[in-house]
Amino acid sequence: MDKTNNPDLRSWIEVEKGSDFPIQNLPFGIFRRPGKPPSAATRIGDTIISLHALSTHSCFKDKGFDPDVFNRPVLNDFIALGKLFGRKVRECLSALFNEDNPLLRDDTQAKEEILFPVQDVEMMMPVKVGDYTDFYSNEQHATNLGTIFRDAANALNPNWKHLPVGYHGRSSSIVISGTPIHRPKGQTKPDSSSFPEFGPTRQLDYELEVAFIAGKATLLGEPVSIAEAEDHIFGLILFNDLSARDIQKWETIPLGPFLGKDFGSIVSPWIITLDALEPFRIPGPEQQPPVLPYLSFKGNHHFDIHIEVYLQLPGQKEVRVCSTNYKNIYWNMVQQLAHQTVNGCNINVGDIYSSGTISGMDPGSYGSMIELTRNGTRPVRLPDGSERRFIEDHDTIILRGYAEKNGLRIGFGEASVTILPAKD
Amino acid sequence: MDKTNNPDLRSWIEVEKGSDFPIQNLPFGIFRRPGKPPSAATRIGDTIISLHALSTHSCFKDKGFDPDVFNRPVLNDFIALGKLFGRKVRECLSALFNEDNPLLRDDTQAKEEILFPVQDVEMMMPVKVGDYTDFYSNEQHATNLGTIFRDAANALNPNWKHLPVGYHGRSSSIVISGTPIHRPKGQTKPDSSSFPEFGPTRQLDYELEVAFIAGKATLLGEPVSIAEAEDHIFGLILFNDLSARDIQKWETIPLGPFLGKDFGSIVSPWIITLDALEPFRIPGPEQQPPVLPYLSFKGNHHFDIHIEVYLQLPGQKEVRVCSTNYKNIYWNMVQQLAHQTVNGCNINVGDIYSSGTISGMDPGSYGSMIELTRNGTRPVRLPDGSERRFIEDHDTIILRGYAEKNGLRIGFGEASVTILPAKD
Repeated sequence: MDKTNNPDLRSWIEVEKGSDFPIQNLPFGIFRRPGKPPSAATRIGDTIISLHALSTHSCFKDKGFDPDVFNRPVLNDFIALGKLFGRKVRECLSALFNEDNPLLRDDTQAKEEILFPVQDVEMMMPVKVGDYTDFYSNEQHATNLGTIFRDAANALNPNWKHLPVGYHGRSSSIVISGTPIHRPKGQTKPDSSSFPEFGPTRQLDYELEVAFIAGKATLLGEPVSIAEAEDHIFGLILFNDLSARDIQKWETIPLGPFLGKDFGSIVSPWIITLDALEPFRIPGPEQQPPVLPYLSFKGNHHFDIHIEVYLQLPGQKEVRVCSTNYKNIYWNMVQQLAHQTVNGCNINVGDIYSSGTISGMDPGSYGSMIELTRNGTRPVRLPDGSERRFIEDHDTIILRGYAEKNGLRIGFGEASVTILPAKD
Repeated sequence: MDKTNNPDLRSWIEVEKGSDFPIQNLPFGIFRRPGKPPSAATRIGDTIISLHALSTHSCFKDKGFDPDVFNRPVLNDFIALGKLFGRKVRECLSALFNEDNPLLRDDTQAKEEILFPVQDVEMMMPVKVGDYTDFYSNEQHATNLGTIFRDAANALNPNWKHLPVGYHGRSSSIVISGTPIHRPKGQTKPDSSSFPEFGPTRQLDYELEVAFIAGKATLLGEPVSIAEAEDHIFGLILFNDLSARDIQKWETIPLGPFLGKDFGSIVSPWIITLDALEPFRIPGPEQQPPVLPYLSFKGNHHFDIHIEVYLQLPGQKEVRVCSTNYKNIYWNMVQQLAHQTVNGCNINVGDIYSSGTISGMDPGSYGSMIELTRNGTRPVRLPDGSERRFIEDHDTIILRGYAEKNGLRIGFGEASVTILPAKD
């Protein structure tokens, strides 16, 4: 076990019980204080730590870091320095914020320049996204959708257990948690009509996903082998792939999702490194039929991460509508990346590769509302008596995630979005 | 007519008869001389004109241009200044290189710093691509593929005449003309087998497309109306959407094209502005059934542009295998952009929106080999006696395009790619 993962470590920064951000997490993000330019940060408890401010502080200097890499509006340049560099930063932070280290702890003036309460800052998109791929790697979700749109006997398509099905999504409309999204308008065609109509979607939905951020670029024509794949993965975020089911249904044949998806996707602000998640590796499901050699992997590349969806109606308390686990993916991240690049497709630092919706076996673990309400036919009843078939205006959807074991909790924070009415 | 489009204009730079680049064209691109950084250029005849070198020259100074905008490795910042600025540059260039203008013509020393023979420079990607969308806007191509993969009676899907079907493609693997592409490997499943196999594609194909480059960004949630759409379009390029048909066929249901497409797409180096193409506007086809109001346009937004595919086998002369016209699209570029953004999806300067394969009515005008050879069942015979069902290793595919009227020819140059064998 890496010493930075030791559950016994404590920081001199206060960390409340149940916090997502103990000293073992040390995620990376981009923050902004009022009137200041955005720059890189990590977080312990409810304290934001400016890595740029820290980079000119004595404890952080002369370690071979280019301090300017933290003084940028996105993390791409920092991530591109490589995993070894990221690990050095992690070790440095772990030592500096250890409860026994007086260096910064007892330097009141330096702390004022480096530490900020989380409520005083705004979190920003952590990376400039190059390309974004959305996979479809959860068997239960693919089965549920196949059952809704086709039939239970033929729910999974013939290719599904042979390759991680995926498609290219829209990069420009990926936004940071807290960004509101207007209900999209578009073409839909009711089954009862022979002509399409135009208007706000009537079937707005969320999708609970976990995405990885690429950490190392490749050249066109150079596949990433499955053995090398993790070296190209920097860390994980939560991803809400908002979907307009009626628009999606009418447009999708034969070229796949387009305007039903690209009006907005929401990510959580902190990239949780694979280093921080190391204690939570587990084996994945047995894959039958056997996969082709380029998708055959060694070791554990699934992670035991609880993931949840909360729904908050205007003026109401939030209600959990889904509780499932990232371990429920059939195709893991190294298989996804090996597949994405096996034809020579090149990747860039900051690319996002998302899991696809993650569902468990029972309705309480379904990662989208179309599954939970069987395509709107069985509304979900909320504690205040109201019902939802799909998402309504002013509803807020919150994704949360955390890994927990032996008293150690490594969390993601949240990816939250409020739906505003369609624009006139 | 804008005076820069006057067919009678002549430049003091030599322009051979039949050149794609008379003084009325003035396209924009990025070039590099050996040992020098890339920067912006235009072209007259076979002469490259450095816009960066020109921007510090007296004739170009003090016109309200930021000269540094031309000293970048991509055109995005220049394009983002807006169409009015682009038009100013165009007018300035048109005047400066007019045969009657002695200012630069008679300044031997300045010319040495500004003008370079085309064979002495390398052309680069003209823009940093944000997102790339591939439409499917040619009725004949959609009908041909529908006939091959389904049946002639149901060739067009029900949505096809109601919306410009499209999907998100891969940005990272779009490369400049002249970049070789290795034959991609991937999963395919022969009809005779119940299991997929892995190896180099056996059905490598090209697709003849014309793409537009977005010239003006929007905010998420702000649709571009069809009346405003052309203001967001900077110009056109040729686009070869290489496709591995066997990989595509096995992966594509239900989420659309992925690894069958994203191993490499080739663009021509010069962005031909809509200003230069103004004389070639024509009406499009009548659209029946009538389109929804957000897709209903005024004016002429089709362009009469001859487009061609040439195939060059190793050691052979090139052979034309397709001659068709960009006017054969059903959905024009303003409809494509209005559709792309109607749900609030935001666009960025440098985004590429491609037409989809463009075919005419007869086999000699089919824009892909799968159409020309009926999915490989009717090989095309070439002058040297060899046959092709699909593209073989070391074959070169060249797209060309030009508009021509009243003795004025505005051309695109070419988008060329040689296919190398699959890597071991």
